[in-house]
Amino acid sequence: MDSHTYPKGPANSVNRYKDRATYDAPTIHSLINSTPVLHVSFVPDPTTPVPAILPMIGKMGLYPPNADLDDGAESCYLHGYVTSRLMKLATTSHSPDGDPGLPVAVAATKVDGLVLSLTPNSHSYNYRSAVLHGVATLVEDVDEKLWAMELITDAVVPERWKNTRVPPDGAEMQSTRILKVRVTGASGKVREGGPNDERKDMKREDVLDSVWTGVVPRWEVLGEPVGSSYNRVEKVPEYLGSFVQEENERREREAKDAAVKQAPQKKSKKTEED
Amino acid sequence: MDSHTYPKGPANSVNRYKDRATYDAPTIHSLINSTPVLHVSFVPDPTTPVPAILPMIGKMGLYPPNADLDDGAESCYLHGYVTSRLMKLATTSHSPDGDPGLPVAVAATKVDGLVLSLTPNSHSYNYRSAVLHGVATLVEDVDEKLWAMELITDAVVPERWKNTRVPPDGAEMQSTRILKVRVTGASGKVREGGPNDERKDMKREDVLDSVWTGVVPRWEVLGEPVGSSYNRVEKVPEYLGSFVQEENERREREAKDAAVKQAPQKKSKKTEED
Repeated sequence: MDSHTYPKGPANSVNRYKDRATYDAPTIHSLINSTPVLHVSFVPDPTTPVPAILPMIGKMGLYPPNADLDDGAESCYLHGYVTSRLMKLATTSHSPDGDPGLPVAVAATKVDGLVLSLTPNSHSYNYRSAVLHGVATLVEDVDEKLWAMELITDAVVPERWKNTRVPPDGAEMQSTRILKVRVTGASGKVREGGPNDERKDMKREDVLDSVWTGVVPRWEVLGEPVGSSYNRVEKVPEYLGSFVQEENERREREAKDAAVKQAPQKKSKKTEED
Repeated sequence: MDSHTYPKGPANSVNRYKDRATYDAPTIHSLINSTPVLHVSFVPDPTTPVPAILPMIGKMGLYPPNADLDDGAESCYLHGYVTSRLMKLATTSHSPDGDPGLPVAVAATKVDGLVLSLTPNSHSYNYRSAVLHGVATLVEDVDEKLWAMELITDAVVPERWKNTRVPPDGAEMQSTRILKVRVTGASGKVREGGPNDERKDMKREDVLDSVWTGVVPRWEVLGEPVGSSYNRVEKVPEYLGSFVQEENERREREAKDAAVKQAPQKKSKKTEED
């Protein structure tokens, strides 16, 4: 497990709600790893400050697989709609520091609950969010690509790779494009607990008597697996069934736990919305 | 309901899996409106092609509220961590066309299921995704800001606004920052149905006999509302209770329906991953 802390810099410093910020690599990486869709932004034309954004699947990893984290930091491996435009950018671009690769930002956000307070301005979500900044290159090495394909497949369902028809053939290897993001900075934010209203509203008996306040927990559920029209394996395999069950228990527990944690403390004088 | 179709242009054309693409405004807007967190990307320093990305809450809307869609197109109103950096950019930037405002891309993605096929390369998600391209400005007009605050609050829980302590006072109005994105282009993608394997794998009896294929439906659940430590309204109000129930029914139905729809057709010769 990567146990370092990301340094704060101008690109990743959290300026609002600093008490909710984290630069802890395990927290940030676990968010990236457990979010089914990451949002990846980049600038298609370096002469024009217009961003693009794509949903992709990704996971943190360190190659080669037997590498120690002392040997380097984990990168973010991404798979998805790597358009020919994006592929070209990843092979021809440079970071502002002159490193080869396309500057990207990668975001993962989980909403754990709707936080309903006395007044709209103090409404919030319980959430966990992470943003990575880095430089994306195409994985060209065949061994690393194969390793990353397994990494990302097993991020969707653990052990899925070895329970399918593998290895990919030559055409499949060639058509698959994996982006590797060398992470140059990262930050995360976590908000949990009940609502937190301002003193001016907490003094209002009429408001307290009429407005329901609390948290609606929110989590993702995986349903009973539905076999395809050509599925011949009648029983849902153990690795899949237990994954569905464990994920469902974990996600529900996380959301419900977040709802009853202590709310963030409010400063006595407050001018920003929650 | 906005019934137009977004024109295709270089910024929003979907180049891969064209048959999954949509430019239909109601489809795209409904995805934006039902996604709890939108990811908003922009370029903080116009001289350096490095993107930033922020999670925000948003909803499509046309102001004034009595306007007809013939009077104009809906904009995307965003609320969230509008940092002072972002606020400054929104008030000082210009689009490449010279329009005032910050060029942004706004993404909404829903995962409706994990699509598990015979071989990793044909694995996919059932998903619905939308990306808006546009120009963001700060809402300065007090009436429009108040209207947008209600729009966005009620996007989290319908009717919540009027059931809280409103209107916001002067300090709250001043501290709240709403971004309005004038949409210049948009596109969406939808994938539904079971897995779709390639002919070469569908001929392999050993593979068909050993690999479970199908869809694991996936949806978001809202749990039983949890009252805050200072909540005095014992019964969960009707508008909240029925919202939780209806959302849960709708989301589960959507995910399960997507799992059993017809899978996208595969071309006979295929070199791209699904």
